[in-house]
Amino acid sequence: MSESNLQVLLAHRPKGAPQECDFRVVEGPVPEIKDGQFLIRGRYLSLDPYMRGRMNDVKSYAKPVEVGGVMEGEVAGEVVASRHPGFKTGEKVLARTGWQRYGASDGTGVRKVTSDVLPLSAHLGVLGMPGVTAYVGLLDIGQPKSGETVVVSAASGAVGSVVGQIAKIKGCRAVGIAGGPDKCRYVIDELGFDACVDYKAGRLADDLAAATPKGIDIYFENVGGEILDHVLRRLNAFARIPLCGLVSQYNLTEPYGVKSIGSLLMNRVKFQGFIVSDHFPRWPAAIADLTEWVRSGRIKYRESVVQGLRRAPATFIGLLNGRNFGKQLIEID
Amino acid sequence: MSESNLQVLLAHRPKGAPQECDFRVVEGPVPEIKDGQFLIRGRYLSLDPYMRGRMNDVKSYAKPVEVGGVMEGEVAGEVVASRHPGFKTGEKVLARTGWQRYGASDGTGVRKVTSDVLPLSAHLGVLGMPGVTAYVGLLDIGQPKSGETVVVSAASGAVGSVVGQIAKIKGCRAVGIAGGPDKCRYVIDELGFDACVDYKAGRLADDLAAATPKGIDIYFENVGGEILDHVLRRLNAFARIPLCGLVSQYNLTEPYGVKSIGSLLMNRVKFQGFIVSDHFPRWPAAIADLTEWVRSGRIKYRESVVQGLRRAPATFIGLLNGRNFGKQLIEID
Repeated sequence: MSESNLQVLLAHRPKGAPQECDFRVVEGPVPEIKDGQFLIRGRYLSLDPYMRGRMNDVKSYAKPVEVGGVMEGEVAGEVVASRHPGFKTGEKVLARTGWQRYGASDGTGVRKVTSDVLPLSAHLGVLGMPGVTAYVGLLDIGQPKSGETVVVSAASGAVGSVVGQIAKIKGCRAVGIAGGPDKCRYVIDELGFDACVDYKAGRLADDLAAATPKGIDIYFENVGGEILDHVLRRLNAFARIPLCGLVSQYNLTEPYGVKSIGSLLMNRVKFQGFIVSDHFPRWPAAIADLTEWVRSGRIKYRESVVQGLRRAPATFIGLLNGRNFGKQLIEID
Repeated sequence: MSESNLQVLLAHRPKGAPQECDFRVVEGPVPEIKDGQFLIRGRYLSLDPYMRGRMNDVKSYAKPVEVGGVMEGEVAGEVVASRHPGFKTGEKVLARTGWQRYGASDGTGVRKVTSDVLPLSAHLGVLGMPGVTAYVGLLDIGQPKSGETVVVSAASGAVGSVVGQIAKIKGCRAVGIAGGPDKCRYVIDELGFDACVDYKAGRLADDLAAATPKGIDIYFENVGGEILDHVLRRLNAFARIPLCGLVSQYNLTEPYGVKSIGSLLMNRVKFQGFIVSDHFPRWPAAIADLTEWVRSGRIKYRESVVQGLRRAPATFIGLLNGRNFGKQLIEID
């Protein structure tokens, strides 16, 4: 194989916001495969906020990336060589081979893409981890009932956009929180949310109150920080908060102090952290429902695709600052 | 009836910590009862941190006390006159007649005390609302498993003392947090906790780490504030936090900002506010178990009894500052 392997490594552990110099792009040989392995040529790399956590050397639910190691992540690609009986050349797969063009795998954690309802890239977004995250968090933890008000932050993102659309399917009022008028217009006009609050407009408390006249029953949390405090003050009795992410906090060295904890007590709120990989038994049902909803037009999605792995670091830095619109992908060159 | 009715009224809504001048003690006539009512002569008044919330004019799970109204609270007393077919003179009852010597009732929310296993006062503590709060919060929300580590704040108080002792009955390691060496000694030596951290000693992070070598699986929260942040940093994966009270915050005009929200996400924690009155179906089982555990010596309790209703305001102010030891009661003169 004449092509080289392009890789993005973690060069330094960032303090605060990552810089491009915290990453290093290298070129090297394509990995050799042994018996029982196969070679994946990545076509799309998914960029997700959780990756910021893997850059830190702290106890978490997953091990950190080693300094000098390949950045972790999921790719959609195809099998280009195989010495594994279960995977054939030409098959489309989803695999955690990381920020690189080629990766060898023994099949652990690899999922085959057998449906061609949607393009391959969609299996990293609405039909993949972000979609299932929205599904499990909203339905299993949030337990929405028709007529309730569901608020979701990062509403135009890969997870938030699906949360609000499922909330509508379940008969709820869906209210997004997003940054800027373009995202808010998209959330209302394209995704069909009932309202969207622009947190950058400087009137968060008033705008949130206007958008949630009957209070908030479910808050699907992706961002944390001051937005969380504002939402806590509008919770109804027995509200639920599926806690999926805290993207506003990942780059801070001193996290924001949340003041309205009293609302959790007064309103008997369930505030529940979750990670989709703990919910594997729910994947088949989630993927089946999401596929049907996308096929029937009840769930729409948008992708931001950037060309070339060398641009992954800058794109990831932008994602952490809310510069993406919909699911952020890198098309691997 | 020659005796007067002594009452403690809310004179002003406090800003921050209540002062004695926020209360007013008045004497007036004993209430007349109508058909369908009966008259209760209170013997013991329960003082509880939740009462601080009722002094504020804010949306909560219960209406605030009116300015000029009788302070709310539960008393243990006896029926001294009755025009109600269900209540006879001489019967012992628990009733929410408030901070006063006499109260008329139509029976709403009144429980009869039929057991004489323990003195009447115990039905306001270990066999009453605080005991059931500990039971429901630890067992139903916390779901302790043998071998887990349970931490409880305000460990020498009416609720915390029962939480740790039930944790021991369920095979857990019980760790208290309390203020001062006397309380900590009591929690370990008398109540049988495995360890107790004195939060006033100035080494909270280190002492908590030493007391919880295998991390924390359940944190029964009574106090909030900085202690909560320290505990959050030691949670294990899938930890549970029954949120019962935030007594360190009730007198603050600006609440403490909790920084370690990220731990809820990384460890997939359930942080669940609750109020015992939402759990009425569980009361009979809770009272039956608690009675048996007290009778068999597996649960011990302590009361601080102050003589005279006129001392209720100062005693309540002390309770909010952690000056009580065990269940705080007023013996009504």
